[in-house]
Amino acid sequence: MPRAEILIDNARVATMAPLAGARGALAGADQGAIGLIEGAAVAVADGRILAVGPRAEVRAAIDGEPGAELNAGGRLVIPGFVDAHSHPVWAGSRAAEFEQRIAGASYVAIMEAGGGIASTVRATRAASDAALLADLLERLDALMAQGVTTLEAKTGYGLETGQELRQLALLAEADRRHPVHIVPTFLGAHAVPDEYRGRQADYVALVVEEMLPAVAAAWPGVFCDVFCDEGAFTLAESARILGRARELGLRLKAHSDEFADLGCTALAAELGAHSVDHLVAASPAGMDAMAAAGTVAVLLPGTTFGLGSSHFAPAAEMRARGVPLALGTDLNPGTCPSESMPLMLAIAARYLRLTPAEGLVAATRNAAESCGRGARAGRLEAGWPADLVLLRSPDYRDLAYRFGGNPVAGVMVGGRWTIGPAA
Amino acid sequence: MPRAEILIDNARVATMAPLAGARGALAGADQGAIGLIEGAAVAVADGRILAVGPRAEVRAAIDGEPGAELNAGGRLVIPGFVDAHSHPVWAGSRAAEFEQRIAGASYVAIMEAGGGIASTVRATRAASDAALLADLLERLDALMAQGVTTLEAKTGYGLETGQELRQLALLAEADRRHPVHIVPTFLGAHAVPDEYRGRQADYVALVVEEMLPAVAAAWPGVFCDVFCDEGAFTLAESARILGRARELGLRLKAHSDEFADLGCTALAAELGAHSVDHLVAASPAGMDAMAAAGTVAVLLPGTTFGLGSSHFAPAAEMRARGVPLALGTDLNPGTCPSESMPLMLAIAARYLRLTPAEGLVAATRNAAESCGRGARAGRLEAGWPADLVLLRSPDYRDLAYRFGGNPVAGVMVGGRWTIGPAA
Repeated sequence: MPRAEILIDNARVATMAPLAGARGALAGADQGAIGLIEGAAVAVADGRILAVGPRAEVRAAIDGEPGAELNAGGRLVIPGFVDAHSHPVWAGSRAAEFEQRIAGASYVAIMEAGGGIASTVRATRAASDAALLADLLERLDALMAQGVTTLEAKTGYGLETGQELRQLALLAEADRRHPVHIVPTFLGAHAVPDEYRGRQADYVALVVEEMLPAVAAAWPGVFCDVFCDEGAFTLAESARILGRARELGLRLKAHSDEFADLGCTALAAELGAHSVDHLVAASPAGMDAMAAAGTVAVLLPGTTFGLGSSHFAPAAEMRARGVPLALGTDLNPGTCPSESMPLMLAIAARYLRLTPAEGLVAATRNAAESCGRGARAGRLEAGWPADLVLLRSPDYRDLAYRFGGNPVAGVMVGGRWTIGPAA
Repeated sequence: MPRAEILIDNARVATMAPLAGARGALAGADQGAIGLIEGAAVAVADGRILAVGPRAEVRAAIDGEPGAELNAGGRLVIPGFVDAHSHPVWAGSRAAEFEQRIAGASYVAIMEAGGGIASTVRATRAASDAALLADLLERLDALMAQGVTTLEAKTGYGLETGQELRQLALLAEADRRHPVHIVPTFLGAHAVPDEYRGRQADYVALVVEEMLPAVAAAWPGVFCDVFCDEGAFTLAESARILGRARELGLRLKAHSDEFADLGCTALAAELGAHSVDHLVAASPAGMDAMAAAGTVAVLLPGTTFGLGSSHFAPAAEMRARGVPLALGTDLNPGTCPSESMPLMLAIAARYLRLTPAEGLVAATRNAAESCGRGARAGRLEAGWPADLVLLRSPDYRDLAYRFGGNPVAGVMVGGRWTIGPAA
């Protein structure tokens, strides 16, 4: 056993480590298994966790004195949050449009005035690489300040082949420059751009025939997502896009049932998608298909909140049917301009009725599974990357119980403190 | 004109300064008048605002070079938030009870197990002055970090004469020690303590005959509040308490219509209360009585959120009837463990349909009026105390549009930066 570079001692640790025999995402009665260890320590070296467990065991396992030692004072250490769903590559602001909506303007009136997603696409296409990267890095800072160490991040404000490839390249560049790990997702089928208005079939053909091969060639195995809903892409279009993506070796995700159930949830589950996301209008058949396939449900309660809606996803029914649940911010300028995973836990507790422990699993272990990082993020295990968060409180329940503040005292990514640790 | 100690230059300033002829709290169509000045400056000396307005005018008005100059880079300066309603003096945690509630335990079951407000009263009575003060100061830090410079703060976890007086003394001590200005409110009629269970009339007699005279003697003119609702105090009891308080020269507030309309809103308005708070179940008659009397409605959307409810106060109806609207955190361990005024603006925009400008007035000028500080807080005017907030954004709409982060770059209280200013 090598010498520990850092020893975090006198902590409570919620490892999210597997139950005996439990693999992958947790569901049903297991969803709240956070693996809490009192009087624990975490030893770190070479960017990885050397040992984690009861402090006497960890001390016995390491050689010599650690390079640096932090007395956590009984506070909680958890895996870094995995934000399972975000759209962080955009330029421009939608604050004026938000004000108009609150004042009573209809969504159609805003669209007709050139607002909505089209305004973000225009601004994003027009922005320089440097400007987009600067905004993206600032958003990563804000996410990390509230505990995120891995981020699923989608394209989808380019909507032409070169622009979508540019968004993927910017995500790769941000991944190199910033401590937060980025899992990129191609979302060319986010919306139909203005220049294809009235020609949706032509845009789908562009996605299938030009974008997908180009994406698969440049970024083999990247995720491909599609927005299947009323006002977005149809079930048949989504099936064509996801089917082609799978043929090209891409991994799959879907935005489904945000507003209406078109049948895409079952389709995506049957195609082997890692996750289906939103699910506000999910049907029993869709949920059963997810449970059968082990597809993770990524719930985005910040979006329901952001829209001022009171109709949240049927999480209790998903839990009862054995669907594993994950959480994400859905960070985007239209419906959820928020970088706070802790707030998502607080909303999820109150409006999805996830217990604090279930929310914690959803924001770590299950979120990691939802974006293909289940073997290296979302848990604290010996040999895994040392991506972890030190909280201000000793009580895991405070993450969901309190809201509106920042519960994070320190963030470590790859064995290095990137935030704090505050005393 | 003296020399400026600090000049904040190149800012946008939202002064909340009076419309021509507008006094007191703003209502109806005036509620969103934020007095926005582009290319503005604020000059500060001796803890007060020397001048505020277009930068050329401010520079012309001050003598010589300022002692220190901050280029705000176009960012927004607003008056410090006035949190119109809080319960910040408590010990113990209710996180375990929160977890039980989310997992499905009934409120009655929790009460019968000794939980609920009774548990907070027990823990608070048992805590030392030093422990209570330390917790209180930490909460003031958290409130100020998100922009609060004046806080209405209630007693109500003592519920016996000596303990209630102790809570008032602790609030006064915190006011001396901490930059945030505290407006204390006596809330002996917060709940019936365990030892009076089944003898509510005896407890009301204690409040009226012993507590109120003692409070009025020690803290002349302090606010007196009462919790009138189903499960709390009746209309007759509330009338007796508020009436006696008024005779003793105390100023009045009421918790009314949080769960049911018992008629206390009209009663409090007619007694000249500064504010009536909660108002989720407010009736047209109550709203009209408030409008007629100029009583400020203190809305607490964080509490509705905290309870996981979707039934928010009828703010649109209040606006239409000419009731001035204010916002507060309702910081308390049972229903709203949150110190974030910005999050309250974000919830208010989405679920009360307050525009970002209306929310800003509600969180500053109108909140100051609601707690008797309308002549010294909640606006930026020459001669007034220099209590202000520098935001990270130039856009006032971002306060409500974005959520879950901290929008504050700097806080000044009494002419001194107590937070930041961050570059």
